Amino acid sequence: MTVYVTRKAHFAAAHRLYNPAWSDVENSRVFGKCNNANGHGHNYNMEVTVAGNPPGETGMVIDLKALAEIVDREVIEHVDHKHLNLDVDFLKGIIPTAENMAVAFWKILESKIPHGRLYSIKLYESDNNLVEYRGE
Amino acid sequence: MTVYVTRKAHFAAAHRLYNPAWSDVENSRVFGKCNNANGHGHNYNMEVTVAGNPPGETGMVIDLKALAEIVDREVIEHVDHKHLNLDVDFLKGIIPTAENMAVAFWKILESKIPHGRLYSIKLYESDNNLVEYRGE
Amino acid sequence: MTVYVTRKAHFAAAHRLYNPAWSDVENSRVFGKCNNANGHGHNYNMEVTVAGNPPGETGMVIDLKALAEIVDREVIEHVDHKHLNLDVDFLKGIIPTAENMAVAFWKILESKIPHGRLYSIKLYESDNNLVEYRGE
Amino acid sequence: MTVYVTRKAHFAAAHRLYNPAWSDVENSRVFGKCNNANGHGHNYNMEVTVAGNPPGETGMVIDLKALAEIVDREVIEHVDHKHLNLDVDFLKGIIPTAENMAVAFWKILESKIPHGRLYSIKLYESDNNLVEYRGE
Amino acid sequence: MTVYVTRKAHFAAAHRLYNPAWSDVENSRVFGKCNNANGHGHNYNMEVTVAGNPPGETGMVIDLKALAEIVDREVIEHVDHKHLNLDVDFLKGIIPTAENMAVAFWKILESKIPHGRLYSIKLYESDNNLVEYRGE
Amino acid sequence: MTVYVTRKAHFAAAHRLYNPAWSDVENSRVFGKCNNANGHGHNYNMEVTVAGNPPGETGMVIDLKALAEIVDREVIEHVDHKHLNLDVDFLKGIIPTAENMAVAFWKILESKIPHGRLYSIKLYESDNNLVEYRGE
Repeated sequence: MTVYVTRKAHFAAAHRLYNPAWSDVENSRVFGKCNNANGHGHNYNMEVTVAGNPPGETGMVIDLKALAEIVDREVIEHVDHKHLNLDVDFLKGIIPTAENMAVAFWKILESKIPHGRLYSIKLYESDNNLVEYRGE
Repeated sequence: MTVYVTRKAHFAAAHRLYNPAWSDVENSRVFGKCNNANGHGHNYNMEVTVAGNPPGETGMVIDLKALAEIVDREVIEHVDHKHLNLDVDFLKGIIPTAENMAVAFWKILESKIPHGRLYSIKLYESDNNLVEYRGE
Repeated sequence: MTVYVTRKAHFAAAHRLYNPAWSDVENSRVFGKCNNANGHGHNYNMEVTVAGNPPGETGMVIDLKALAEIVDREVIEHVDHKHLNLDVDFLKGIIPTAENMAVAFWKILESKIPHGRLYSIKLYESDNNLVEYRGE
Repeated sequence: MTVYVTRKAHFAAAHRLYNPAWSDVENSRVFGKCNNANGHGHNYNMEVTVAGNPPGETGMVIDLKALAEIVDREVIEHVDHKHLNLDVDFLKGIIPTAENMAVAFWKILESKIPHGRLYSIKLYESDNNLVEYRGE
Repeated sequence: MTVYVTRKAHFAAAHRLYNPAWSDVENSRVFGKCNNANGHGHNYNMEVTVAGNPPGETGMVIDLKALAEIVDREVIEHVDHKHLNLDVDFLKGIIPTAENMAVAFWKILESKIPHGRLYSIKLYESDNNLVEYRGE
Repeated sequence: MTVYVTRKAHFAAAHRLYNPAWSDVENSRVFGKCNNANGHGHNYNMEVTVAGNPPGETGMVIDLKALAEIVDREVIEHVDHKHLNLDVDFLKGIIPTAENMAVAFWKILESKIPHGRLYSIKLYESDNNLVEYRGE
């Protein structure tokens, strides 16, 4: 039996979409206003889903408080109230699109889940834009 | 052709996470503040998804008003404004985690869907914690 | 590697659930208050999901601004502030249930996605009722 | 002591902004796409606020279940799944803008509140547009 | 110059509406399903608003992190994951309606605000029911 | 008769709380993680409320489409996808707290409202933090 449990987390960060291999004109053409030189920012909402079989003695796939602490320690503390291009070691050299961030968060979290297996990471950049990565 | 239709429902209930086979110390260690002796409570949000092929003459997989009435009669009336550990026959002997509740609701609803097949039950215990069960 | 990116869009429209092959009595019995002769209406929320592999030089499956413009031009401009039974060419002869609308939107958008592939269309008719179509 | 208690209610309706004293050109110029001849529609959200002093024996300004039933009987049943220009007696001869609807709902509800006094009616026409009337 | 700053907080609790001076029949008649003997529960959302003039050197009426810590220490820690009738000293002898809870929270917080003055406490018992108290 | 009409708007921006008259130590002590040297960011939600008497021929205090265009041209275009400390002329020399931003937006918009009078500006910096300014 598989139950999917999801914990939401939140962070606020600045970023800039920018490819250093390209000219300013090309960067502006591709990334539009997301290329603003001084950056812009978002309140990011993140959903981490773990799949597993809840054992009878606890009825829980994973203790959501423990999961929240893992997500906080491994991801949120590194990105919250930061500039994603400048302040975050594990995003160095990566264009901080929501797609790339979700994949980077997956790589960090995949091996840290003590019960069940990481199933999905959703990242909302705004109310209207979101991405999901399922490790495939 | 498969279309997934979802109806949301809501209930407010008290519960306590507690395993009677364990000592108080062990219960407190595993369940933390959810083990509070007098219980605590939530506004639960539930999403019931039915999959099927909408016939041409109605364009509906299932009449959502009929689905709402089934969910209301079979589940909501039994859990709304109740204590999940003490007042609900079909949860007797089950630790009322969101995982166990979603599975219990699935077992009740699976055979009651008149058109299409039950595909998913999502249960939100709070804005930040949710579970999903797909009958697998 | 597959990442799923979703763009939300919104429109407000009137509609009436009505099968012209049936008597008024039969229409009323099946569609209930959704059969009101003068129609009723909704604020529809739509989620269009595209699946793909974000190339390294952009980190984006698809430019969400470009996706938004496609959805706007191909769907929203045709249905926003319209009567779905009377004003929309591509819904002519279709009972405008959320199921049928999601399938109709899929058929329009499927071939218009320039990067990645259309994966899902979700349509919320209200806070409590939604449908999803994945082209299967 | 004054406490303000609010009950939310919801309805779905079609409407058209149209002034019969004006030409079609003038109607279109003033009301834009809200003037579409066949109408459009919304999911309306309504908040009814009653102000009063909660008596010690109940701790309630007004029984919110009773307030919900009043709002349902006096307003919601008359406008839900209706066309506001064509189907609603108490809106006859009124352009159904959110402003005019809030004032009309106030006039109906003001004398029907059994405990406390009607303080405010808020009406959301969409997530981005809302009005409030306080009877002044 | 007056600016109003609001901090939201959240807690989950069980409660029962019950007047010990009344018979069971009278309690059931007045409080309905909220009178369930074993209690029920809610996810409460609380909004604390402080009014003041933001000084030029900080631009803040009050440090919202400090306000959050005050609300957490004085209110949330006492009610979160508790039974409001049984576990909370400052609610002893009070019927725990949202109205009475908002007033009780005001009395606790009013003298604890280090900058500006407490202006409003809003308490959402569910998505559809909320109360506000402004100390008047 | 006074009706209050509200239009919501949205923007994404980076900012840093920083008082140039203070040492780094003092800035860090007062502003905490909001003082991060490279900045952070938010999705801001803004609510502009105009009060007025809806004339009978239109039933509208102000055309909300016109209000949206004013807010967009005068405020949103200047702050969306910008760094509030570096890119915005009308915020130069102001610490960009939500309080100061709401007051700055009021000063810009107050004289631009063609019908009714500006009544309130609400600014949400996150789901849990918001401010309101009413011009008093």
